[in-house]
Amino acid sequence: MIAVLKSGVTPEQQENLCNWFESMGLSVNISTGDYHTIIGLIGDTSKVDIELLEGLSIIESVKRISEPYKKVNLKFHEDPTVVDIEGVKVGGGNFQIIAGPCSVESEQQCLSIAENVKASGASMLRGGAFKPRTSPYDFQGLHAQGLELLAEAKAKTGLPIVSEIMNIRDLPLFENVDLIQVGARNMQNFDLLRELGNTKKPVLLKRGLANTIKELLMSAEYIMAGGNENIILCERGIRTFESYTRNTLDLSAVPALHELTHLPVIVDPSHASGISRFVESMSMAAAAAGADGLMIEVHNDPEHALCDGAQSVTPAQFDKIAKKVAKIREAMKD
Amino acid sequence: MIAVLKSGVTPEQQENLCNWFESMGLSVNISTGDYHTIIGLIGDTSKVDIELLEGLSIIESVKRISEPYKKVNLKFHEDPTVVDIEGVKVGGGNFQIIAGPCSVESEQQCLSIAENVKASGASMLRGGAFKPRTSPYDFQGLHAQGLELLAEAKAKTGLPIVSEIMNIRDLPLFENVDLIQVGARNMQNFDLLRELGNTKKPVLLKRGLANTIKELLMSAEYIMAGGNENIILCERGIRTFESYTRNTLDLSAVPALHELTHLPVIVDPSHASGISRFVESMSMAAAAAGADGLMIEVHNDPEHALCDGAQSVTPAQFDKIAKKVAKIREAMKD
Amino acid sequence: MIAVLKSGVTPEQQENLCNWFESMGLSVNISTGDYHTIIGLIGDTSKVDIELLEGLSIIESVKRISEPYKKVNLKFHEDPTVVDIEGVKVGGGNFQIIAGPCSVESEQQCLSIAENVKASGASMLRGGAFKPRTSPYDFQGLHAQGLELLAEAKAKTGLPIVSEIMNIRDLPLFENVDLIQVGARNMQNFDLLRELGNTKKPVLLKRGLANTIKELLMSAEYIMAGGNENIILCERGIRTFESYTRNTLDLSAVPALHELTHLPVIVDPSHASGISRFVESMSMAAAAAGADGLMIEVHNDPEHALCDGAQSVTPAQFDKIAKKVAKIREAMKD
Amino acid sequence: MIAVLKSGVTPEQQENLCNWFESMGLSVNISTGDYHTIIGLIGDTSKVDIELLEGLSIIESVKRISEPYKKVNLKFHEDPTVVDIEGVKVGGGNFQIIAGPCSVESEQQCLSIAENVKASGASMLRGGAFKPRTSPYDFQGLHAQGLELLAEAKAKTGLPIVSEIMNIRDLPLFENVDLIQVGARNMQNFDLLRELGNTKKPVLLKRGLANTIKELLMSAEYIMAGGNENIILCERGIRTFESYTRNTLDLSAVPALHELTHLPVIVDPSHASGISRFVESMSMAAAAAGADGLMIEVHNDPEHALCDGAQSVTPAQFDKIAKKVAKIREAMKD
Repeated sequence: MIAVLKSGVTPEQQENLCNWFESMGLSVNISTGDYHTIIGLIGDTSKVDIELLEGLSIIESVKRISEPYKKVNLKFHEDPTVVDIEGVKVGGGNFQIIAGPCSVESEQQCLSIAENVKASGASMLRGGAFKPRTSPYDFQGLHAQGLELLAEAKAKTGLPIVSEIMNIRDLPLFENVDLIQVGARNMQNFDLLRELGNTKKPVLLKRGLANTIKELLMSAEYIMAGGNENIILCERGIRTFESYTRNTLDLSAVPALHELTHLPVIVDPSHASGISRFVESMSMAAAAAGADGLMIEVHNDPEHALCDGAQSVTPAQFDKIAKKVAKIREAMKD
Repeated sequence: MIAVLKSGVTPEQQENLCNWFESMGLSVNISTGDYHTIIGLIGDTSKVDIELLEGLSIIESVKRISEPYKKVNLKFHEDPTVVDIEGVKVGGGNFQIIAGPCSVESEQQCLSIAENVKASGASMLRGGAFKPRTSPYDFQGLHAQGLELLAEAKAKTGLPIVSEIMNIRDLPLFENVDLIQVGARNMQNFDLLRELGNTKKPVLLKRGLANTIKELLMSAEYIMAGGNENIILCERGIRTFESYTRNTLDLSAVPALHELTHLPVIVDPSHASGISRFVESMSMAAAAAGADGLMIEVHNDPEHALCDGAQSVTPAQFDKIAKKVAKIREAMKD
Repeated sequence: MIAVLKSGVTPEQQENLCNWFESMGLSVNISTGDYHTIIGLIGDTSKVDIELLEGLSIIESVKRISEPYKKVNLKFHEDPTVVDIEGVKVGGGNFQIIAGPCSVESEQQCLSIAENVKASGASMLRGGAFKPRTSPYDFQGLHAQGLELLAEAKAKTGLPIVSEIMNIRDLPLFENVDLIQVGARNMQNFDLLRELGNTKKPVLLKRGLANTIKELLMSAEYIMAGGNENIILCERGIRTFESYTRNTLDLSAVPALHELTHLPVIVDPSHASGISRFVESMSMAAAAAGADGLMIEVHNDPEHALCDGAQSVTPAQFDKIAKKVAKIREAMKD
Repeated sequence: MIAVLKSGVTPEQQENLCNWFESMGLSVNISTGDYHTIIGLIGDTSKVDIELLEGLSIIESVKRISEPYKKVNLKFHEDPTVVDIEGVKVGGGNFQIIAGPCSVESEQQCLSIAENVKASGASMLRGGAFKPRTSPYDFQGLHAQGLELLAEAKAKTGLPIVSEIMNIRDLPLFENVDLIQVGARNMQNFDLLRELGNTKKPVLLKRGLANTIKELLMSAEYIMAGGNENIILCERGIRTFESYTRNTLDLSAVPALHELTHLPVIVDPSHASGISRFVESMSMAAAAAGADGLMIEVHNDPEHALCDGAQSVTPAQFDKIAKKVAKIREAMKD
């Protein structure tokens, strides 16, 4: 960590500051310029509160050299993590497609989509039972009943199931969910993350609409700090000024995360644009960017879906997408 | 609500669509142009799912004319809401300053700041007991003990107290908190909003970092839909590309919210910029923009605050700010 | 175009407004709801100033149904435009890679890179002679001399050349440049666009850092309105809150532009992230997203490049990228 | 300037790098930690190209300690600059209101507005003759004739005149314009800035829609580097995800610029929101934030203005705003 002192700091103030750093077990290296004095801090600075430091009146600016995330950091864990979800592996060269409806609506809908996407090559089934909706008057999901319908579809197809949790209190209901999704709006619901860190359940952590790549890593660190290492990160679009698409898919996040962390990274092209006709091209682009998997919304009747119909593709379209993605994956082999 | 059809829609498709609208109790008005047909929907469209409609393959675009928020809407509730917090009124011409430390740290700290800010004119005491921190390794607050220290400070100073809730499960601990804050990261924690809607507790709802003014209103609608009308909205800065300040304070949100809703609107200049030396000018600007109040972080020793020291002002600085804001308020009277 | 009237508009005001619309040659269709009256305008609304209309005190909101861009619009020109640059075709299935140094530095550097990138499959040579630099103290390019060095490299390799213009006055110097680039900072330099519209020179129009897809189309419309149809659009990253990459590459812009316009769309992965190690994955992703070409910065000695070394790849890296992109292109064929 | 080396750098590489720094006249201070080596550079680093440095393969990151702007920097010029425009002073405690129509439309319109705003307290007249419009089909201004009408209004009222330049070639036409405006879209039109630096004309430099505060200072540095010190900066709203207002007025830019530069800072509340009914509250807020002046669009007939009617206030509204702003200014005196 580097701290730059303001000009005009007295030798006494500087000495007090250095003593304080040393009392925290850090070594101090001072370099004095014409306008500024720079203090280099060496040692374990992960517990230094950078905002507190920036608040000191004698400090001009502070720069962290070591990253504040440790357990998720590629530097300290060089092999890619492979998350195993009931035998389905993600990461470290294993590429998977998760598919299914935005919301679980009925036994028939859920099972029929599950069979379709399995036939096309999906290896996990997604379906929402608890839905975060902007309006209190919109459909909020079937809740416990929705999770049961997913479990039935799993029993019949063998596909592990993925569903979103919105609330710690619902955790007992998720016992049979194989991969628990934390949605974009809950990426910084720290109590929820901490609780999931105390389980061994695989977690799919989506990037928040306005969260940086580094904040996503800090949220994953919350889960890992509790002892749960089964985390998959998911890029799903960020909020920008562009309004043609619902969000802006940030595919650079894929190589960026791969150079910062050992955790697998998948992409959700459906939520990113909110436009079903862009799902094909963005799925192919995500695969070509090196993602470890995709999560795609599929609905047998998108025009009558109870939520997010605009971004769902039909089973026939999904089949075509899965085939094209497989060809891209093939082309990427040396 | 207006739906624009794509060119090439058949008369049969158009008729089916209109029948469907009419089955939902809506009247339909059709206007046919050279390139597009426009369907106007008249009646209660608040329950029409706009995303579902946009997903239909024959629809080019949809525009809501009526707002999806009803209870918070100024159109249906023309008098400004005055929220009464233990006798302290906010809104409808009543301007209040909430002040106190980011985090409650000790009995001595909490009481001393409370006495100071009361003497300078603050009418409510804020203090964090549950702190949302980006890093799992940073100080997370004193929790129940922090709330008790606030209650003691209230007993001694008479100031109603304000503190942030992060989790529904903690609600019983907030019985003695007079104004419950929902932080920016939880603005779309819909389960928490719904639960607060079932109480009668005044709620301070902060705008999310990446949320629009209309999304803030939809979140307030969640609370009001449950029957709780005691809501104060708070602008606290949004995330933009500018990095000199931590966030960009959006003061236009004050007149914008005042023309859309009857709920009071206050401003938090401390979190907006994250820089204590900007709190004075932004407090004055917020008052001049017509805000119904301010929430300001004050710490007796910002350089050693356990969190967010960078944005706290000292009691002496707060005293000066409160006096200047009072002069601005005076100048705004006709 | 649809105009929604405010509630409380008198019949007289409404009639005056409708008369005014009719005097502009538009047909008017009125639909009256409980809270709002909606006026549909039919006819050529491309010359109605939408901001003027929104400014009228009796208007609540206005929505354009027809797009304000005409000549670049796919609706009125269904075949993809193929731009021919000295025999090198871009668009309509023709994919090209433009490569070369950020800045032209010397005869030796320029020629050596040109030969290298040609051998790897690039079909055009890019090189900056006039450089927009944030600081007045940074290297600004070799100007006329730089254009001459490019022309020499063209003479020896046969590669058409691409270079950025910053100023109308320099246009005569660009006589031998085959594809004139308008940089992101000049996307709304309307005088420059208009002047280029009066030539027949192929123009490479880059999207501005903070410009929407529709604004990019309006800028292309400026050029086409003058009679020049040889335009290639370029996505090169937009400015967002994410700071890990210099900009956020918006690959959804590729399918979005392809459904709105007949003009070809290429991607610049070098400027988008500003990080050379991301160029490979983003090039592959752009090709998979359906781009009509790539523009890549290549430098024989990126560590000593006079500008933008951070985002340049070496000739050896470029060779690998070009091969991988070719495999992706191959995989996309049915 | 601080450079952090990647781990794994050899002693030889490090020595070569340090020799290179020393060959540029810089002193080098090395501090070695467990994971990183930090190199502090002391001396005149303003000419070191930070992007080149970041591009070196052995460098992890670079941080500038000294700002790259020198002439506009408050550190090297502690007294606030007062810009004198034909006797009207801006900055250093002098507050001025510039008012007038978005576009000059006719002699009668221009003169009548000039007389009105002068009577209400405006001290300069603004009016657009060259208008940057997104669409080539919208009104582009009266050009030379517009500048003549402004000059006539100046002759009759004595108000100095302010107008926007879009193109270097038009500079001779601006001989009688007292304060030349560089619009948001041209903030990084470096050739235009350089040319204005060679004159002695006062320049009003508006912040770009997507430009940071520091980029605004670098653009001012372009002008000052040429010898012209008569620069007024203008905050006019930035582009964010919020769409209720056209742009988001960033009032924190006022105290931020005041702590970084000696140049005066004014605010344009009209363009910021694009909504005339917000101009009053945002004008008062800007004054309370410490701005050195305001620029407000006024039109006698906003409903028929040829451009930007939505954001213009009437002379009567302007009169009220000017009075309220005067009261705020009065309240700010100690």
